[in-house]
Amino acid sequence: MKIAIINGPNLNLLGKREPGIYGNESFESYLYQLKDTYKNIAITYFQSNVEGELINEIQRVGFDHDGIILNPGGYTHTSIAIGDAVAAITTPVIEVHISNIFGREDFRKISFVSGKAVGVIGGLGLEVYELALSYFNSKKR
Amino acid sequence: MKIAIINGPNLNLLGKREPGIYGNESFESYLYQLKDTYKNIAITYFQSNVEGELINEIQRVGFDHDGIILNPGGYTHTSIAIGDAVAAITTPVIEVHISNIFGREDFRKISFVSGKAVGVIGGLGLEVYELALSYFNSKKR
Amino acid sequence: MKIAIINGPNLNLLGKREPGIYGNESFESYLYQLKDTYKNIAITYFQSNVEGELINEIQRVGFDHDGIILNPGGYTHTSIAIGDAVAAITTPVIEVHISNIFGREDFRKISFVSGKAVGVIGGLGLEVYELALSYFNSKKR
Amino acid sequence: MKIAIINGPNLNLLGKREPGIYGNESFESYLYQLKDTYKNIAITYFQSNVEGELINEIQRVGFDHDGIILNPGGYTHTSIAIGDAVAAITTPVIEVHISNIFGREDFRKISFVSGKAVGVIGGLGLEVYELALSYFNSKKR
Amino acid sequence: MKIAIINGPNLNLLGKREPGIYGNESFESYLYQLKDTYKNIAITYFQSNVEGELINEIQRVGFDHDGIILNPGGYTHTSIAIGDAVAAITTPVIEVHISNIFGREDFRKISFVSGKAVGVIGGLGLEVYELALSYFNSKKR
Amino acid sequence: MKIAIINGPNLNLLGKREPGIYGNESFESYLYQLKDTYKNIAITYFQSNVEGELINEIQRVGFDHDGIILNPGGYTHTSIAIGDAVAAITTPVIEVHISNIFGREDFRKISFVSGKAVGVIGGLGLEVYELALSYFNSKKR
Amino acid sequence: MKIAIINGPNLNLLGKREPGIYGNESFESYLYQLKDTYKNIAITYFQSNVEGELINEIQRVGFDHDGIILNPGGYTHTSIAIGDAVAAITTPVIEVHISNIFGREDFRKISFVSGKAVGVIGGLGLEVYELALSYFNSKKR
Amino acid sequence: MKIAIINGPNLNLLGKREPGIYGNESFESYLYQLKDTYKNIAITYFQSNVEGELINEIQRVGFDHDGIILNPGGYTHTSIAIGDAVAAITTPVIEVHISNIFGREDFRKISFVSGKAVGVIGGLGLEVYELALSYFNSKKR
Amino acid sequence: MKIAIINGPNLNLLGKREPGIYGNESFESYLYQLKDTYKNIAITYFQSNVEGELINEIQRVGFDHDGIILNPGGYTHTSIAIGDAVAAITTPVIEVHISNIFGREDFRKISFVSGKAVGVIGGLGLEVYELALSYFNSKKR
Amino acid sequence: MKIAIINGPNLNLLGKREPGIYGNESFESYLYQLKDTYKNIAITYFQSNVEGELINEIQRVGFDHDGIILNPGGYTHTSIAIGDAVAAITTPVIEVHISNIFGREDFRKISFVSGKAVGVIGGLGLEVYELALSYFNSKKR
Amino acid sequence: MKIAIINGPNLNLLGKREPGIYGNESFESYLYQLKDTYKNIAITYFQSNVEGELINEIQRVGFDHDGIILNPGGYTHTSIAIGDAVAAITTPVIEVHISNIFGREDFRKISFVSGKAVGVIGGLGLEVYELALSYFNSKKR
Amino acid sequence: MKIAIINGPNLNLLGKREPGIYGNESFESYLYQLKDTYKNIAITYFQSNVEGELINEIQRVGFDHDGIILNPGGYTHTSIAIGDAVAAITTPVIEVHISNIFGREDFRKISFVSGKAVGVIGGLGLEVYELALSYFNSKKR
Repeated sequence: MKIAIINGPNLNLLGKREPGIYGNESFESYLYQLKDTYKNIAITYFQSNVEGELINEIQRVGFDHDGIILNPGGYTHTSIAIGDAVAAITTPVIEVHISNIFGREDFRKISFVSGKAVGVIGGLGLEVYELALSYFNSKKR
Repeated sequence: MKIAIINGPNLNLLGKREPGIYGNESFESYLYQLKDTYKNIAITYFQSNVEGELINEIQRVGFDHDGIILNPGGYTHTSIAIGDAVAAITTPVIEVHISNIFGREDFRKISFVSGKAVGVIGGLGLEVYELALSYFNSKKR
Repeated sequence: MKIAIINGPNLNLLGKREPGIYGNESFESYLYQLKDTYKNIAITYFQSNVEGELINEIQRVGFDHDGIILNPGGYTHTSIAIGDAVAAITTPVIEVHISNIFGREDFRKISFVSGKAVGVIGGLGLEVYELALSYFNSKKR
Repeated sequence: MKIAIINGPNLNLLGKREPGIYGNESFESYLYQLKDTYKNIAITYFQSNVEGELINEIQRVGFDHDGIILNPGGYTHTSIAIGDAVAAITTPVIEVHISNIFGREDFRKISFVSGKAVGVIGGLGLEVYELALSYFNSKKR
Repeated sequence: MKIAIINGPNLNLLGKREPGIYGNESFESYLYQLKDTYKNIAITYFQSNVEGELINEIQRVGFDHDGIILNPGGYTHTSIAIGDAVAAITTPVIEVHISNIFGREDFRKISFVSGKAVGVIGGLGLEVYELALSYFNSKKR
Repeated sequence: MKIAIINGPNLNLLGKREPGIYGNESFESYLYQLKDTYKNIAITYFQSNVEGELINEIQRVGFDHDGIILNPGGYTHTSIAIGDAVAAITTPVIEVHISNIFGREDFRKISFVSGKAVGVIGGLGLEVYELALSYFNSKKR
Repeated sequence: MKIAIINGPNLNLLGKREPGIYGNESFESYLYQLKDTYKNIAITYFQSNVEGELINEIQRVGFDHDGIILNPGGYTHTSIAIGDAVAAITTPVIEVHISNIFGREDFRKISFVSGKAVGVIGGLGLEVYELALSYFNSKKR
Repeated sequence: MKIAIINGPNLNLLGKREPGIYGNESFESYLYQLKDTYKNIAITYFQSNVEGELINEIQRVGFDHDGIILNPGGYTHTSIAIGDAVAAITTPVIEVHISNIFGREDFRKISFVSGKAVGVIGGLGLEVYELALSYFNSKKR
Repeated sequence: MKIAIINGPNLNLLGKREPGIYGNESFESYLYQLKDTYKNIAITYFQSNVEGELINEIQRVGFDHDGIILNPGGYTHTSIAIGDAVAAITTPVIEVHISNIFGREDFRKISFVSGKAVGVIGGLGLEVYELALSYFNSKKR
Repeated sequence: MKIAIINGPNLNLLGKREPGIYGNESFESYLYQLKDTYKNIAITYFQSNVEGELINEIQRVGFDHDGIILNPGGYTHTSIAIGDAVAAITTPVIEVHISNIFGREDFRKISFVSGKAVGVIGGLGLEVYELALSYFNSKKR
Repeated sequence: MKIAIINGPNLNLLGKREPGIYGNESFESYLYQLKDTYKNIAITYFQSNVEGELINEIQRVGFDHDGIILNPGGYTHTSIAIGDAVAAITTPVIEVHISNIFGREDFRKISFVSGKAVGVIGGLGLEVYELALSYFNSKKR
Repeated sequence: MKIAIINGPNLNLLGKREPGIYGNESFESYLYQLKDTYKNIAITYFQSNVEGELINEIQRVGFDHDGIILNPGGYTHTSIAIGDAVAAITTPVIEVHISNIFGREDFRKISFVSGKAVGVIGGLGLEVYELALSYFNSKKR
């Protein structure tokens, strides 16, 4: 089973950026544990601050992977192009958010990606990645 | 560990109502499996079509349970009072939706509950309940 | 032939409430005449001020009756949950309104039910119920 | 008793145009049956694609007929001038629609005519004309 | 000096239509007095309920008359095409309204014509025509 | 003199719920003092989380009491049906709010009840009930 | 006959300010001619840049003058208080504008005064004052 | 105890202006009674039609008085500057309105002051001032 | 091959009207060249300022022609009825505009026709007609 | 003659992505034919999923090419920066879309590019590129 | 060189009002330092809470000073009249704000002045005045 | 002292692009002078048309520089991700704009960056960079 985790802008600052909202663990250390727990799954990881590179990666993995866990960060609310990429591929996508975007600014309540994803998990901290992974894992069974 | 599952209007029709959107398994049969899997958790279940009875139940379990899994159904998008109840209690609430509400009508994109919940899981079918449960379970550890 | 008439909030005050808008005949006396005229039709009647009880009744009659005449009153404009109930059942629903809601406040121009009903009849006084009944009656032929 | 039926734009294509929405009976054949059923009523019929000619006809019949059954078609949602004509005359007007306009595009949810009519009947197919006629007929009694 | 008065939909009902708003004098009798007062001016008069015929007339007089007094009636608020015609011609246009459209429904507060006219006179009863005429007359001097 | 106090959803949690906003005195203890101060007034009290039960109570007391003090809680901003009930009865209603709803979320700035009430008192803590009571009391004189 | 002309903010700069929009004649020289033409009318003139002083003046002349010609300038679009003053007095008010406000910025299309005035004359240069005056003059006859 | 009553635009016309909405008692005669009832309170009174003078007065009394009863009149809905003044001072402010602003025009439903006041009392006639006074008086105890 | 060109309001003024926007060639002279170039195509031409006559023509040619090139002019942005006509016929329609409507007023950015057409060509001057023609011509091959 | 074709995000998936909307021919094979037909024109081709790289290319070719055919894909509706680039260069740009964006989601009806382009061609499949090319070609003559 | 500093409502409370937002230095003490630093510039200072007096001052200095530094305070977001004054004069105006108005309430994001000013400096504390001054000073060179 | 200047899309065209709005000096030549004037400050310069590369640079310099002068160009109004980056770093950011964005299109009035910056300087030409620099310089003292 092949699962791609794709993180959008500013998520490379995790552990460093506004810890009150995003916690203080870096994504790399979290990923290490995740891979350790799900040894049976080939997890690839990609992060970029560039909208178009996220699209490139979605396209690259989007026809042969079993699932994509996508945190589009700030692009969630502005990128029709990422939403189009999610619609264009055949791999199912789960959109995740670490913080509860519904309890924050109004402009974070619009998503151009959610409607094209198979599901959305938001607001439970880094565990959203594990929940998405366990969903894909259970589908495999 | 005590977890309450609270389902809102029309979810008693599950398995019967618009199967293209909601699937054709009844909630009761799904719940049976869930309890079987999570034997260590005391799961209570409540469903009502009456907004105020949902509030009553949220208030009843909201000060001593370890978690609430709330699917407010159609009230998600119209009930400030349910949102107020979620904010008023001390038990953490995860809002769940079986269908991907973001891919449906515009009026389903507003939620008065999400901002008050600790997280939102939507659009992955009945498994959203299990994911929420596994989140609460992992927190216990 | 079985037809259910379901009246929403404040319609129990008919004949008593704002007669300039709603007339001064009580619904019960009107219903008596209606049953007298349509002796061949089994007409059931239900009124509640509680949104969820209206949903309960819609669900109860919604899989074996031949038609529902639904006046959702003030819930017309705010209840996604009633609209969902109408969509979930198999019995066809005609939405009726005694007053011409289009000539009143702006917030009465939105309906979450109309789009799910097979038709809407509004603004002709109590006769809207008879017109809806005669429609269902003609379909029977 | 004199009743005028006035049909707006594209209703001359009935039976030919989008049968999934409007059915496949032409209005003329329907009208023939209607006149046959209501022999006691003098029914006049007028159809035009021209907004102003509809106003001309509304004005022509609007001071001596007993009722007008008006299907303003696409002008329903854009014509303040037709709404003004309905308000200016003394004959009562029932607005009818063959399809359920509330279940279609958003721009079909606004009506400049409804607030000026005594009632609105929509979404039950060609029978909306007969229902309106039977309403006027019952008033005569 | 040649001045055209062009009246839009329902203004042929003046004196007959909603006298509380529009007064009870017919336009013809008013026009008779106006011509009598302004004998030095050749006043032409045109009324139509058809939007396109109003455009035809605006185009016909719009390149050789000295002024147009245009009351677009209900088309004021919906007709981009009449606004385009006013912009396309070389004769200056004054938009007039008998009633104070600003004190009525919200949809009467938008005008697609006003921005293309040299001026707007509204709300003073039939005298708006005389005021517009006296303006064009004074310009001639 | 008979005055009814009717409290809406979540007000049964007073003293327990978000004390920073609502204070930490329970409504029952406050009511005890109020009755003690206004011995000459028969004060009835009703609380429900169910919108329709609030309507039932408004209807029950709305034709023979001298005043209703209504705190619709979260339903203030969403319930056309409660607003309709207030309009339908003959007893005057004062809408009260413990917190200053104008200084909170935007969705709390809309009220479907205020326009139908004789007055609104908001934002001064539990004393809003006493102020409303003293208003009705002074009217009696 | 007593007529008050009241000019709002920046109209003291007339002849000096943006001549492309407002022309290059000062209001004083224009007023001189106007008084000369209408010798039978007692014309008072008041200008202020202060919203409240305009209200003071409207109140001062608003119960014994025969007409007020009010150019509220930039306050037209923002002052509910001036609109309230116009509604509160008994003297009829004509709102005038030198430029065609409908052909300018969107925020100049809203007026809080127009709905309370007996009429509006806009966009014909300084002659709007004379037209308003001639209207009041004709009413005297 | 020192309480300032500050009245905004057009409130000097009370008793004279639109008595159907505002009653026919002048504020001065009402104030006389109020002072007579609350002899223990030093009540100062200020009225102005000028927004900035209201701000001056709010600032003047806003650091040493025990309470301000502010009726901003038409400025309620347009003055951010008055709202800023209320936020800038230390004396608590109660906003009052004689008429029920929620039952009137839409533009009266927005307030830039309410969110900065400790409370709002509206719609009960002149008695709103006494209620506000009695609130401050009770706080003193 | 039969292609109909249908031009809406004010396009008869081409070459005469606002040449800065629309150029100074009349449509007739342009059409002459077009027919000369495309000798193999039977091109019919119809222009009207009347919305309903445009609908009449669309209906007349809409079931046997191979293509319609429709420039609805100002009706583009206001006519649901023309959009309905385009949807009702079987001949494919290309909507054309001579000027770039997207670079002009905001109200020209809405089209009720575009969504029903097979394509839209705008902003390249009179050549939009030739491009549409060449599209239909290429389809024939 | 030098023409640049610039394709935005997800257009590299053409032939692969949602064939119901975009057809199943890859852009490369289409381009091959196009170059074959227009041998006299030097056609350059650039595709990127990165917004800024599209701007780089627009700037690179925007001062010496004879025309740009730009399909901004999903960036059409969100990129002010691409619109600015189109405005900043001297080469004329035609915006093209393969699908009829006006018949799809609402958010595809806004374009930040169209107003800066010389024209827009949308909704006719891949032929929009050839039509744009033939336009530039005809201009050369 | 003559520069006018004009401060709007509540800025006289600086140092006293909400120090978390506006700092705790009074404007007078700041001005003293500023004059000391820029001895070569004649700096005049004016503050008023009255919108119209700000306009008076803008007009007074607006035709012979070399620059105006204007902090319109709360009037920034509501005063079309001040914006008109800024447009009417010949002296260039820089709008300044001490706090970052973009990080505060939504209604502070609209400015009727900014579009008429030559520049805007906001959010850097009292230093915005010095920056504006240094801009005018550098222009002198 | 280390200050980073970061310029967004199309600012590399300065001196070449729309000189009426942006002037005709290139940024490089301006930067040369700036560095010459502020020899004590280490000024780094970065320009990119790619949104994500701007984020990369903001992150790179955002934890050890003393200030960032950021001109996000067209991304100002669309990039939540850049705003997030500005919020995530510890170096203070001043947003600058060469043109007065408030006097241009409406879509340039929204900024996702301003609320996260310490200040905004706009509309004074290239000098906005020097003003920002002098602000940071003065803070150093």
